[in-house]
Amino acid sequence: MAGSTFGHLLQVTNFGESHGPAIGCIVDGCPPGLTLAESDLQPDLDRRKPGTSRHVTQRRESDRVEILSGVFEGRTSGTPIALLIRNEDARSSDYAALVDTFRPGHADYTYWRKYGARDPRGGGRSSARLTAPMVAAGAIAKKWLRETYGTTVRGCMQQIGEIAIPFESWDEVERNAFFAPNAGIVAELEDALDRLRKSGDSVGARLRVVAHEVPVGLGAPLFDKLDADIAYAMMGINAVKGVEIGAGFRSVTQLGSQHGDELLPDGFAGNNAGGVLGGISSGQDIEVSLAIKPTSSIRLPRRSIDRSGAATVVETHGRHDPCVGIRATPIAEAMLALVLMDHALLHRAQNADVRHAVAPLKARSKSA
Amino acid sequence: MAGSTFGHLLQVTNFGESHGPAIGCIVDGCPPGLTLAESDLQPDLDRRKPGTSRHVTQRRESDRVEILSGVFEGRTSGTPIALLIRNEDARSSDYAALVDTFRPGHADYTYWRKYGARDPRGGGRSSARLTAPMVAAGAIAKKWLRETYGTTVRGCMQQIGEIAIPFESWDEVERNAFFAPNAGIVAELEDALDRLRKSGDSVGARLRVVAHEVPVGLGAPLFDKLDADIAYAMMGINAVKGVEIGAGFRSVTQLGSQHGDELLPDGFAGNNAGGVLGGISSGQDIEVSLAIKPTSSIRLPRRSIDRSGAATVVETHGRHDPCVGIRATPIAEAMLALVLMDHALLHRAQNADVRHAVAPLKARSKSA
Amino acid sequence: MAGSTFGHLLQVTNFGESHGPAIGCIVDGCPPGLTLAESDLQPDLDRRKPGTSRHVTQRRESDRVEILSGVFEGRTSGTPIALLIRNEDARSSDYAALVDTFRPGHADYTYWRKYGARDPRGGGRSSARLTAPMVAAGAIAKKWLRETYGTTVRGCMQQIGEIAIPFESWDEVERNAFFAPNAGIVAELEDALDRLRKSGDSVGARLRVVAHEVPVGLGAPLFDKLDADIAYAMMGINAVKGVEIGAGFRSVTQLGSQHGDELLPDGFAGNNAGGVLGGISSGQDIEVSLAIKPTSSIRLPRRSIDRSGAATVVETHGRHDPCVGIRATPIAEAMLALVLMDHALLHRAQNADVRHAVAPLKARSKSA
Amino acid sequence: MAGSTFGHLLQVTNFGESHGPAIGCIVDGCPPGLTLAESDLQPDLDRRKPGTSRHVTQRRESDRVEILSGVFEGRTSGTPIALLIRNEDARSSDYAALVDTFRPGHADYTYWRKYGARDPRGGGRSSARLTAPMVAAGAIAKKWLRETYGTTVRGCMQQIGEIAIPFESWDEVERNAFFAPNAGIVAELEDALDRLRKSGDSVGARLRVVAHEVPVGLGAPLFDKLDADIAYAMMGINAVKGVEIGAGFRSVTQLGSQHGDELLPDGFAGNNAGGVLGGISSGQDIEVSLAIKPTSSIRLPRRSIDRSGAATVVETHGRHDPCVGIRATPIAEAMLALVLMDHALLHRAQNADVRHAVAPLKARSKSA
Repeated sequence: MAGSTFGHLLQVTNFGESHGPAIGCIVDGCPPGLTLAESDLQPDLDRRKPGTSRHVTQRRESDRVEILSGVFEGRTSGTPIALLIRNEDARSSDYAALVDTFRPGHADYTYWRKYGARDPRGGGRSSARLTAPMVAAGAIAKKWLRETYGTTVRGCMQQIGEIAIPFESWDEVERNAFFAPNAGIVAELEDALDRLRKSGDSVGARLRVVAHEVPVGLGAPLFDKLDADIAYAMMGINAVKGVEIGAGFRSVTQLGSQHGDELLPDGFAGNNAGGVLGGISSGQDIEVSLAIKPTSSIRLPRRSIDRSGAATVVETHGRHDPCVGIRATPIAEAMLALVLMDHALLHRAQNADVRHAVAPLKARSKSA
Repeated sequence: MAGSTFGHLLQVTNFGESHGPAIGCIVDGCPPGLTLAESDLQPDLDRRKPGTSRHVTQRRESDRVEILSGVFEGRTSGTPIALLIRNEDARSSDYAALVDTFRPGHADYTYWRKYGARDPRGGGRSSARLTAPMVAAGAIAKKWLRETYGTTVRGCMQQIGEIAIPFESWDEVERNAFFAPNAGIVAELEDALDRLRKSGDSVGARLRVVAHEVPVGLGAPLFDKLDADIAYAMMGINAVKGVEIGAGFRSVTQLGSQHGDELLPDGFAGNNAGGVLGGISSGQDIEVSLAIKPTSSIRLPRRSIDRSGAATVVETHGRHDPCVGIRATPIAEAMLALVLMDHALLHRAQNADVRHAVAPLKARSKSA
Repeated sequence: MAGSTFGHLLQVTNFGESHGPAIGCIVDGCPPGLTLAESDLQPDLDRRKPGTSRHVTQRRESDRVEILSGVFEGRTSGTPIALLIRNEDARSSDYAALVDTFRPGHADYTYWRKYGARDPRGGGRSSARLTAPMVAAGAIAKKWLRETYGTTVRGCMQQIGEIAIPFESWDEVERNAFFAPNAGIVAELEDALDRLRKSGDSVGARLRVVAHEVPVGLGAPLFDKLDADIAYAMMGINAVKGVEIGAGFRSVTQLGSQHGDELLPDGFAGNNAGGVLGGISSGQDIEVSLAIKPTSSIRLPRRSIDRSGAATVVETHGRHDPCVGIRATPIAEAMLALVLMDHALLHRAQNADVRHAVAPLKARSKSA
Repeated sequence: MAGSTFGHLLQVTNFGESHGPAIGCIVDGCPPGLTLAESDLQPDLDRRKPGTSRHVTQRRESDRVEILSGVFEGRTSGTPIALLIRNEDARSSDYAALVDTFRPGHADYTYWRKYGARDPRGGGRSSARLTAPMVAAGAIAKKWLRETYGTTVRGCMQQIGEIAIPFESWDEVERNAFFAPNAGIVAELEDALDRLRKSGDSVGARLRVVAHEVPVGLGAPLFDKLDADIAYAMMGINAVKGVEIGAGFRSVTQLGSQHGDELLPDGFAGNNAGGVLGGISSGQDIEVSLAIKPTSSIRLPRRSIDRSGAATVVETHGRHDPCVGIRATPIAEAMLALVLMDHALLHRAQNADVRHAVAPLKARSKSA
């Protein structure tokens, strides 16, 4: 309610600022008995953390997570799991010049109007750094989903600026700095990003996140539709400006006879629905696509105003991602996993007694 | 939590099925003192209701709303406002054939898997008919926003199938059956829809919803971002498959130097942000765009399965919208108004004491 | 959040005023498949309704409930169940004199200060009449609990004013107008209430509510403790001023060696805990006791002020219960049932996979 | 929802176990601009902490709180305030013997049944140690209430076992180990507690908590009544078995002509209401009374069962409070302060625009 808690039954409450002493979250509602250790969370944190290549911010954070509660003798106990990450490389001096002005595209202005004051160091609460605890929380959800239903969640880059990235294989995604599912395009991306970084500018991106082996029946018919909660989760990620489920905006020009996925005895004939029909999961892959705006912090001079309303010019130095979309891939995966686990718990609360004589339709083939 | 309540502080709890005795909602949390009567709600209900032209479903519903509580001597009293709409033209026989099978693109299959049974009459709970109470609730929010802040919310059609609708004027929107902001294109739309209806098929659409004169400071930095809540609200509307805020998917190919709206002493230089920066309203127009899939109920034969899993063919007769996007315009307006009013209440709860020496930036010009 | 919704996963949203056109509620989150009809709800409504004896208010309300949604072919469908009760005997003229003044002990003053205006007719939203929809909702919870776990909930009167009512038998409770579990004391109660009514005064009462065969494990260790949620539910009933679980205030003078219920292989040795240990149900009977203040509306003259703050005198005519505690018995049962069902759903959401080799302790004997 | 978050708009999410590495909480929703430092929180933590006299547990915890976020340059920034307390003196070996059995009166049995496993060290999540973060959170609420409305919250002991403690003066409360508002009775209490400690037994207590200068209008007419939320908060404190507001159980034997507090131009004539009428604060002192059961951990042998259901005997050594009621005073104050601040925010969200020509009634005199 106060804006720092995510989820209905699986609730993640997040705290921290970019340059404060620590960031973290409390994950409440996780079922007991899941084996869990820091080593389950670290891999996704490492995928998201800064400084992993020259194409992302050079801030040095080890992003080591500490589990403070909720795990006893290696298993979740059903009590809240508190996760703590200490901030290490917080160069606040970079931001001294920004106290009195507002970076275009940033939350600086709106934050100041809302609260009357703001922590200007690294974006304070508005920093994408606050997604790190969500990635750790999402790793718990991923593990629980995988062990309970065989559900897996993964993401990849679809486009950076004008460069579309044809999907080739999930295997490539972890082999390059861009989460690109295509080895052949990496050199072109590297070149483009190098030029962009030198120019001092930034660029947008388009991501895709997919969940496989999702149980049928998650969601609700009216509000708390599964796709509505996914849209909420995705649009809540820093810099996201658009969300699509399944055919998304392509459905504008489709006919009903094209869009509606036919049901065959061996599965759905297509997946324009993106795995959600009437707000409820169909058992098909959940398909989500995101538009991410270009990083707002750029070295080029931009016109702005100061706190008295007078005209000024802002140049942002400090260390920034030339394309914030890159590091968003593990974040989007985490948020999708959190939504799915939350809805799995909600679903069994109400419908644990529902029985069917016939097994649900299988997904015909994993979406490529 | 159980999926039928929308909002944080302004909460709308919705009930009903397409062919049950009645539909309606309870609007809780409205401030006291607002003048309110059924006549404030009926105009938007009439804009949404079926049967207003040959281009929408021919079901005959007067959609007369009755206020059952929460208004005393013509003013809201601060207590929950219950709204009741009786269903009148529920031809259940149209649906008898559908009990045992699943219409492609519909919630039939997922609903049955989730709950073990379903009301097949008119889509039951999954019918777009359940948006009528939201339109009535939204009319309350619109009125409160207008009287409190001068905020207005309006929507229009941007595209139907392949026909893009160039924006000319808000004045045109209420003068045609398509909510098209362009008089010149109406004949082409009529012709296209007539052909479509005869063919038995349906088509998708793209809508735009805008809020003007929104107070700065609504939203939150992490979760419950204003744009995240808008995405949740919009993706929750029946048949919506994509949501954009501001530049939306165009931001994928933008550079940071293009996207970030500069701040000038007389206002923002652009509105790629769509009125939201870092999850908080900037005072610019809130700009939202939606993709709506083609109606799933079409007369053309589609392959499906029955409840035993065997192959069958479905043809949907009954009365349906050839383009559900048309009637979605007042629905999207209502949902946006509800989100804004909810966030206005949330904002003043926490920040009622924040004072500024300088007035917020003005919107430079109303977005066309 | 806005104050008219009760419960976490099983949510009841209530609307209406004492003298408005109707009262009712929406029950959301009920599992599908429960057989349900108005006839399941009416008996408890009839136990609560006014005019059943000379010892309660003479207002004539049939309190006929109509199910508007959520039930299809005689079974709950998993969608919200809307319940409507039309007000019939609303003599608003009785209250005309009260618009400008405040009845001592009533919400008149506080309501006016909070909202700036109030519906003075019959207490408006603050009337105990608004418990009728909760009794109907509670009847759904009772039925689901009974069919799912064999859980039953019942209440009885323990004391009216100075007259303590020794417990003899549950069988007597429905045989007299006072819900007294003791036939021998009924004449004394009738005589006392007759004298009280003639005097124009009113009196307090003490109730007991018990749940038998409650599953072990409902509740949570910190907040949303089962007993905390029960206390919330009970203190929320009109006129309740005190709540006890198990030994309640008697535990103040107990020693640890007396209070802590020993565990024996065939069950707990006692029930000072009232069925809740550490916020979680133990499988013992849930034992709750309530203090209900005397009716605030009395015929005797009381000093008060008017809206300008000047001294005045109030006498309340109209039709009132000389002891509001009497009709509170079915209300308290309903609220306890709602809390238990809500927690049963919450429990299985998180802990559906927990398995035990050993059956839980049996309750040794039903509490008398 | 998942049971570790307290409050509606001011939300405190708590984590930790008695013998884990740390405990703490996240306080979300605090308005910006409040001056805040650890030194504002430490005094109440010190009042609650163990080892302050021979009459409480001898566990040695400094309970030093660290603010991890939400405060910038000495003022709250409107973002979540994370509070961390490291556990220092966790002698887990004391509990090794308890893994396989269940202490009477404790959550051991119910916790094990619910979650299938439990952390037996010091009660794990069920330990009263988890109230420390709430005391710190409550200190924030106390400060905000005092600075915003002049509201103060304080508590005192009313009775320990058979020894009633007549109220003399608030000034005495902080001068003795028992929070007794009466200097003359301290020797008797010391003597009784010394004997009790030697005997290995424990005893119950009765506390009182009062809030002065509470704004009129906090609460709601139906659910989320101010007194219902107070009852929830108080019954949620470890070992509480009963809650009273105002006259509480005394109202059972009162007549309406005695109980209903008359309104006079200079204030209410009495405070049987305990400051709440119809669920809404009246501006009178909020008066709450609590029954606290005797500590369940005692050195005397008690019958119990082991995890296989076989009979056994339990003696609890380790370090325990002979009367847990003593340290509950600052806890109850904190919980009352949190409820009041939460409702103050809720109230202004909905009713910020309500205006009155006449000032509210003054409290006639501070309750003694």
